[in-house]
Amino acid sequence: MSEYKQGELLKNINFPNDIKQIPQSKLPQLCTELREYILDVLSENPGHLASSLGTIELSVALHYVFNVPDDTLIWDVGHQSYAHKVLTGRKDYFKTIRSFGGISGFPRKDESKYDCFGTGHSSTSISAVLGMAIADNLLNKSSENTHIAVIGDGSMTGGMAFEALNNAGTSDANLLIILNDNGISIDKQVGGLSKYFTRITISAKYNRLKNKIWNMLGGNTLQYSKHKSFVKKVLLATKYVFSGKSTFFEALGIRYFGPINGNDVDDLIKTLKSLKHIKGAKILHIITKKGKGLPQAEKNPTTYHAPGLFNPHTGELRAENRNTQIAPKYQDVFGETMLELAAIDNRIVGITPAMLSGCSLDKMMDVYPERTFDVGIAEQHAVTLAAGFAAKGLIPFCNIYSSFMQRAYDQIIHDVCLQNLHVVFCLDRAGLVGEDGATHHGAFDLAYLRAIPNIIIAAPLNEMELRDMLFTALYTNKPFAIRYPRGRGNNLNWRNEMKILTVGKGCANECSNDAQIAICSLGTIGNNALEAISQLKTENINVDFYNFRFLKPLDTQLIEEVISKHKIVITVEDGVITGGFGSAIAEYVTKVNHNNRIIRMGLPDSFIEHGTVKELQHVCGIDTEGIYNQIRKSLKHKC
Amino acid sequence: MSEYKQGELLKNINFPNDIKQIPQSKLPQLCTELREYILDVLSENPGHLASSLGTIELSVALHYVFNVPDDTLIWDVGHQSYAHKVLTGRKDYFKTIRSFGGISGFPRKDESKYDCFGTGHSSTSISAVLGMAIADNLLNKSSENTHIAVIGDGSMTGGMAFEALNNAGTSDANLLIILNDNGISIDKQVGGLSKYFTRITISAKYNRLKNKIWNMLGGNTLQYSKHKSFVKKVLLATKYVFSGKSTFFEALGIRYFGPINGNDVDDLIKTLKSLKHIKGAKILHIITKKGKGLPQAEKNPTTYHAPGLFNPHTGELRAENRNTQIAPKYQDVFGETMLELAAIDNRIVGITPAMLSGCSLDKMMDVYPERTFDVGIAEQHAVTLAAGFAAKGLIPFCNIYSSFMQRAYDQIIHDVCLQNLHVVFCLDRAGLVGEDGATHHGAFDLAYLRAIPNIIIAAPLNEMELRDMLFTALYTNKPFAIRYPRGRGNNLNWRNEMKILTVGKGCANECSNDAQIAICSLGTIGNNALEAISQLKTENINVDFYNFRFLKPLDTQLIEEVISKHKIVITVEDGVITGGFGSAIAEYVTKVNHNNRIIRMGLPDSFIEHGTVKELQHVCGIDTEGIYNQIRKSLKHKC
Repeated sequence: MSEYKQGELLKNINFPNDIKQIPQSKLPQLCTELREYILDVLSENPGHLASSLGTIELSVALHYVFNVPDDTLIWDVGHQSYAHKVLTGRKDYFKTIRSFGGISGFPRKDESKYDCFGTGHSSTSISAVLGMAIADNLLNKSSENTHIAVIGDGSMTGGMAFEALNNAGTSDANLLIILNDNGISIDKQVGGLSKYFTRITISAKYNRLKNKIWNMLGGNTLQYSKHKSFVKKVLLATKYVFSGKSTFFEALGIRYFGPINGNDVDDLIKTLKSLKHIKGAKILHIITKKGKGLPQAEKNPTTYHAPGLFNPHTGELRAENRNTQIAPKYQDVFGETMLELAAIDNRIVGITPAMLSGCSLDKMMDVYPERTFDVGIAEQHAVTLAAGFAAKGLIPFCNIYSSFMQRAYDQIIHDVCLQNLHVVFCLDRAGLVGEDGATHHGAFDLAYLRAIPNIIIAAPLNEMELRDMLFTALYTNKPFAIRYPRGRGNNLNWRNEMKILTVGKGCANECSNDAQIAICSLGTIGNNALEAISQLKTENINVDFYNFRFLKPLDTQLIEEVISKHKIVITVEDGVITGGFGSAIAEYVTKVNHNNRIIRMGLPDSFIEHGTVKELQHVCGIDTEGIYNQIRKSLKHKC
Repeated sequence: MSEYKQGELLKNINFPNDIKQIPQSKLPQLCTELREYILDVLSENPGHLASSLGTIELSVALHYVFNVPDDTLIWDVGHQSYAHKVLTGRKDYFKTIRSFGGISGFPRKDESKYDCFGTGHSSTSISAVLGMAIADNLLNKSSENTHIAVIGDGSMTGGMAFEALNNAGTSDANLLIILNDNGISIDKQVGGLSKYFTRITISAKYNRLKNKIWNMLGGNTLQYSKHKSFVKKVLLATKYVFSGKSTFFEALGIRYFGPINGNDVDDLIKTLKSLKHIKGAKILHIITKKGKGLPQAEKNPTTYHAPGLFNPHTGELRAENRNTQIAPKYQDVFGETMLELAAIDNRIVGITPAMLSGCSLDKMMDVYPERTFDVGIAEQHAVTLAAGFAAKGLIPFCNIYSSFMQRAYDQIIHDVCLQNLHVVFCLDRAGLVGEDGATHHGAFDLAYLRAIPNIIIAAPLNEMELRDMLFTALYTNKPFAIRYPRGRGNNLNWRNEMKILTVGKGCANECSNDAQIAICSLGTIGNNALEAISQLKTENINVDFYNFRFLKPLDTQLIEEVISKHKIVITVEDGVITGGFGSAIAEYVTKVNHNNRIIRMGLPDSFIEHGTVKELQHVCGIDTEGIYNQIRKSLKHKC
C-alpha cells in the first residue's frame, strides 16, 4: 500500500468505474486530491511533472464519460498519462513509476488493459487510434465506441501526425482527437502551426463583426428574417475566418470543436458528452496549463518538465540538483563547446528538433540566436534542413537524441550521406538512458548508422574526447556522427584545449606485454572496463585496453595489433551487439582469417526496460562487475 | 551528339541563357518541341514519362524567369525534371538517362550545377530549399534570390513536407513553393489534403454569394457605400471559406497564390514574374496534366508513369511489355498471393503508402476494397496504422519498398517490434533496383532490420518461397519482414501449394562430401550462386550451397554444419555487407571461436549508381561470373 496521503475521494478510487459513482459536482475535488497525490509522489520519485499536472481534469473527464478500453484511449508521447495511471488500477504502484521493476513512465500495453497502445516517441497516436478504430469496424465490434487520441500541440508538428490527419479526414471512423494545447513542447513551442493555434484562441473579432452585421441589417427587422439562413451562413463563414478557426483541420476533412478550457472538468464533461454522439473524425481543441496547480511549474514549465526532487508544497527544487561541484552533464559539455566553436567559425549553425534545453543548445541560442534553429518536433525536417545548410556551405551541427534519430534514418542516408555533405550529427542520450526506458534507450544508433556509406561515426570515452570530436568534425568535410550518453561524466577539469583527432584512429590506453585478453571499447562505457581492469591489476592480472573512438572508419591497424597480441578479444559497447561495434570487429577478424575468440559485450537482442543506468548496465552485464566477471570467466576458459 | 530530331528552336538551346534569348511568344513552340524530343527519346530509352510531360511548361517558364543556380531550384522526387535536364546542358546526353554510366533519372548535385540538390524520395524539397535560403541570408549572399521548390500534391502528403511548411511559415526566407497539382501520385491521389485541393479548384460558390450580398444590400445604394470596406471584408472572408482556398497554408503562415494553369507557359511566366517581387514564404498552386500531350498518357497516367518502350506518335506500348509467357514479377507473386491469403483469413488487411499498383496490391483492392488501404505517401503513418490494426487483432500486411521503409524505421522499432505486434512487412524492391539508382536501391534493409529485437526477417530464393513466407507470416504471431526484389523471377509454374516454413531454419540445397567451399546465401541472389556452382560442377569442382531463408532468427545449427564441414565460407547477399547477413555469420563464427575464413559478398560500403540490375550486380561482383571468380580465387588461395 502507498504511504502517500490520499484525499477522501481518491481513497475510494481504484478503477474508472469508481469515478462514475461520484456525483459530477464532486469531480473538481477529486482533481484537487489527484493533483496533491501526484505532487506528493513525484516530489520524492522523480518523473514528468508539469505535463501530468496539466491533464488531471482531462483524465478524470475522459474516464467519467467513456469506457476504456471498450472506448480506445491513446496518450501521445504518454508522459502526461500519470493521472490516468493512478485512476486505472495503479494508484498504489504509482510511487514505483520509472524505477527498476516498477511501472513505466509511459503507457504500456503489457502493463494494463487501460493502456490501449504504448507510446513514448511523439506524434504516433493518431495513426494508431485510426488503425484501432478501423479494426473495430472490420471486426464488427460496436460502432458506438469512441476512439480517442490525446495529442499535444507540440506533437502535432511531427510529420506523421499530419500524415495520419490526412488519412483520417477521409475515413468514417469514429475518432476523437483531443488537441491538448499548452503552447509548450518541453521548450516553448515554435512554428507556424503554433502561432495559428494562438490566433484561434485570442481572436475576438468575430463577436464584434456579428454585432456589426446585425446593426447593418437594421436589427431584428424583416430584412434580417428574410435573409436569416443566409446571414447565418455568412456569420459562420466570417467566424471561421476572423478567428482563423478550424480551417486548418477542416481543410483535411476533420470537424473542429473548441477551444475550451481543458482544466475545467465540468466544461470538459459537457463537451465530451455531446461529442460522443457526433460520428466521424473530429478534433476537440482544449487549452491547458502545463504545471497546473504548482505556481513555479506554471511559470517555468521547462524547468518543471522533469524537475527531479522538489518540495511538493513550495515547489522548491532540492539542493542536490544545483550542486556545481560535480562533473558536468555531457549535454552541457556539448552546449558549452558549441559556444566556443561558433566563435571560431561563423559558418557553424546549430539545429535541434524541440530539445533546445534538453541538449543544451539553448546556450548557443542565447548568444547566437540567428545561427540557432529549434524547428519543433520534426526530426526528418531537421536533418534535411541541415543538408540544405551544408549544400550552401554552412556547417550545421544537428543535435538529436539517439532514439529520436531513428525518425530521420532515411534523411541521413538520402539527403546527407548520399550527397556526402558536411553535416555533424550530435546524438545525445545514446546508449542506456535509464528511467525513460525501452522507448528512449539509444540502443540502435551504432548498428543503423554503420550500414551507411560515407559517414564517420565516433563515440568519446570522456568529456575531453567529446570536445575533441566536435572540434575534429568541424574540420572534416564529411557527414560526421558523434554519439554520447545522457548524464554526467567524471571530470571536473573537462575544458581541455581542443585538438584535431585522426579520423578512424583509436588508441591503446593500457598495454602490457603479458596480457592474454584485450578489451576493445567504444564510447563512455569504456570507463566501466577501465575500472574492471584496474581492479584486476590489484589481483596481478593484466588486461590491455583499446579505446577505438571511431566505429567508422574502423581502425584496422589497431585491430591487427589487438588480434596478433591476444587470443581473446572482448568488445564492449553501449548499444545492441547485433550489427554494432563488436560485429564490425568480428567482420574484420573473419575476413583476415584470424582465429581469435571474440566476445561481444553490449546490449542484448531484446528491449531493455526502465531503471537507473547503473541497474540496467548490470542487467546487461556491462557494468564494472559484469565486465570483471567476463574477463575472469574468459581467463578460466582459456586455462 | 544526339540522333534524335530536334525542332528549330530546341536545336539552339543548350543552357537556360539560350531560352532567355527567345521572344516569349515563341515559348509555346519551344514547349512543343521539347515534348516531342522527350517523347522521342523516352520511347526508346525507358524512363518516367507522364510526370515529365506535365512539367514542360513549368521548366521553360522557371528558366525563363529565374537564374538557376543563383536562384535555387529543387525538384521534389525529381523524376519530373527531364525537361529541366534537357534545358540545362544535358540535351545530348539525355538519351543516356538512367542507363549505366549515363545521366541519372533524378537531379544530382554532382551531375550539374543546375541540379541544386539531389532528390529521389518524396517530400524533401521544402526542408532543403528552406535550409539553402537561410544559408544564403547568413552567408550574406543577395537577398534578391528566390529559392524554389517544385513539389507534387502527392509529395505534399509526406509528413516531412508538413514539418518543413510549419518551419517555413515563421521564416522570412524568400521561398517559392510551387505546388504541382495533378491529382496523381503514381496511382490516384488519396487523403483529405487531396480532396481539399480539388475543392479549391472547382468551387464557384464564391461568385454566387458575391451577387447575393450585392442584391441584399440593394445594389449600388448608399447602404452599400456606407459599408463598403466592411462588405469587402466579408467578401474576402467568404471567398476564402466558400472556395476553401488558401487557409490551410495561410494557417501555417505561408501566403497562397493560385490556382493557375501550369500547362500555360504565358500564364506561368506572368505569375512567376510578379511573385519574384513578393518577399517571404509563398505557395503557388498550379494545375498540370500528368502525361500532357500524349492522349493515352493523359488518360492512363498510372500506366504511363514509367511505361517502358512505346510508340512516340501513337503512344502504343511495345509488345514485349505484354508478354505473359515469362515468369511473373515478384510484385505480382505478392499481389496474387495476397488474394489467396485474404480469402483464407478475413483478419488480413493490406496497406500501401501510394504504391498500390507498384506493389500489385491493386489486385487486393479490386476484390477487397474495404480491407485494402492506400494511405498516400506516408510511410510512417502506414507502419503505425498497421500497429493499430494489429493491436486490435487484424493481421496487416504492410507493403513498402525497401528504400522507402527507411522512412519508417522508428515506427518499426517503437510501435511494432517493442509491442511485439503481428505486422507483416513486405519489402518490395529490396536489393539492387537498377535504373532508378542510388536513391532507390534497397541496400540497407537487412542491416537496419537485423538490429531490432523481436522481428523475424526472411528473404525468399524464388517465387515459391516468397509464397511460403507470406503464408508462414500469416501464422506467426510476431513482427515479420519479408524482403524480395524488383523484377521477374524464373519460374513459370510458381503457383505452388503454400506450406508453413519453420521460422529460423534454412536448408542445404546441394551438398557433397568433398566440397571445400560452402556458399551461404540469403534471397534471390542465391540463384546467381547456384548458376556459378553448376558451372563449376561441369569442371568437376563441388561447392555446397546453403539457402538460409531467414536472417533472423539465424539458423545457428545450419552454420555449425557449414563451418564444421568447410574451411572457407562465402556469404552472398543483395544488401550492404556492413552489418548484414554475412556479418551475422561472422558474429557467430567468432563467438564459437571457429577459425573459418568468411568471405562476405554483397553490396560494398559505397552508394551504387544506376544501370541494369545485371550491370550493377557485375559492378558489385555478385553476378554469376563474380561469384564464380571468387570461388576459383578462394580455391587457389587455399591450395
